[in-house]
Amino acid sequence: MNFKPKIIAMDLEGVLIPEIWIAVSEKTRIDNLKLTTRDIPDYDELMRGRLDILKQHNLTIKDIQKVISTLDPMPGARKFVDSIREKTQLIIVSDTFYEFAHPLMVKLGLPVLFCNSLKIDSNNMIADYNLRQKNGKKKAVKAFMKCGFSVMAVGDSYNDTAMLAEADAGILFRPPENIIDQFPQYPVTQEYAKLKQYIEKFLDT
Amino acid sequence: MNFKPKIIAMDLEGVLIPEIWIAVSEKTRIDNLKLTTRDIPDYDELMRGRLDILKQHNLTIKDIQKVISTLDPMPGARKFVDSIREKTQLIIVSDTFYEFAHPLMVKLGLPVLFCNSLKIDSNNMIADYNLRQKNGKKKAVKAFMKCGFSVMAVGDSYNDTAMLAEADAGILFRPPENIIDQFPQYPVTQEYAKLKQYIEKFLDT
Repeated sequence: MNFKPKIIAMDLEGVLIPEIWIAVSEKTRIDNLKLTTRDIPDYDELMRGRLDILKQHNLTIKDIQKVISTLDPMPGARKFVDSIREKTQLIIVSDTFYEFAHPLMVKLGLPVLFCNSLKIDSNNMIADYNLRQKNGKKKAVKAFMKCGFSVMAVGDSYNDTAMLAEADAGILFRPPENIIDQFPQYPVTQEYAKLKQYIEKFLDT
Repeated sequence: MNFKPKIIAMDLEGVLIPEIWIAVSEKTRIDNLKLTTRDIPDYDELMRGRLDILKQHNLTIKDIQKVISTLDPMPGARKFVDSIREKTQLIIVSDTFYEFAHPLMVKLGLPVLFCNSLKIDSNNMIADYNLRQKNGKKKAVKAFMKCGFSVMAVGDSYNDTAMLAEADAGILFRPPENIIDQFPQYPVTQEYAKLKQYIEKFLDT
């Protein structure tokens, strides 16, 4: 048994909480907020469009946070997160923004989150966004490994696959079919109980 | 205001919990376990000596954990940790071992901990130790900064000063007099309430 300490790097949206933009779109009934990088591949263009839409509808960060605070983590997510934190170090890595995720992070027991931040102006409008770095998930995993950790990465979608490839081990949780087909090297599970088993097995290596 | 996300990198022993080896020495009444790098400057020699002493006294990891689980965090530490995690990302960086710190981390609400690990043999004796890396505290701060974070480091003793120097900002909490004299560039406080104010000020920069 290698006795390096371990970190679990876990995606947030689709794994522990619902997709935030889709939920905001549904709650606000603004259809255009449902667009993703599947529709607009350039992330910067997509985000600028989203911020413009919020401005057009005069939605402040407080309005958005009020919407987000009506959301809940996925059933069982909090208990799962608690049980992993009891056993090892868990760091959530996500492309979302602290200002959006916060109400849901509270409901998850405030695990550490590596994500991005928003610039809020004096009228509480979102003026700009700050990507911490390009390929932030993969680079976070790389940083943990450089600090001497063995890392297992858990994600659900295409933008998680680079960190799964970087890590010592990777698991797909509730991925779409095309990701399963394209990345047959990773175990796939739909259930927290099974995901916990994979993590425990990793902790014993 | 720079709107980079922030991380607080905080030392453990002397800041949130008592010095573990000293506490174990007092509880077990084995005086030699009180020796520190002040007495034996070579850390590896010091640690091998400690492991030998535990072996001589036939103390297993479970015995040590039982002793450590009678310890408590410093008064106010849990409330302080909770209040910081509510506001920003907190990562504890320490030279201790996961197997020792765990009971105290539970009492602190299981914040993320970057530290070292022990090799336990089949008789529950500590067979060896694994330093995650040399200068682990400083390198952890460096890794967070490379991930795009602004970092404030908090520590109490000489082995924290390298991470304080590396970080964007540093605070000394309950340091001995010689550290205050030698590192006049860092603000010093004795109280969590004041430390929280320094952190809040950093979060607003």
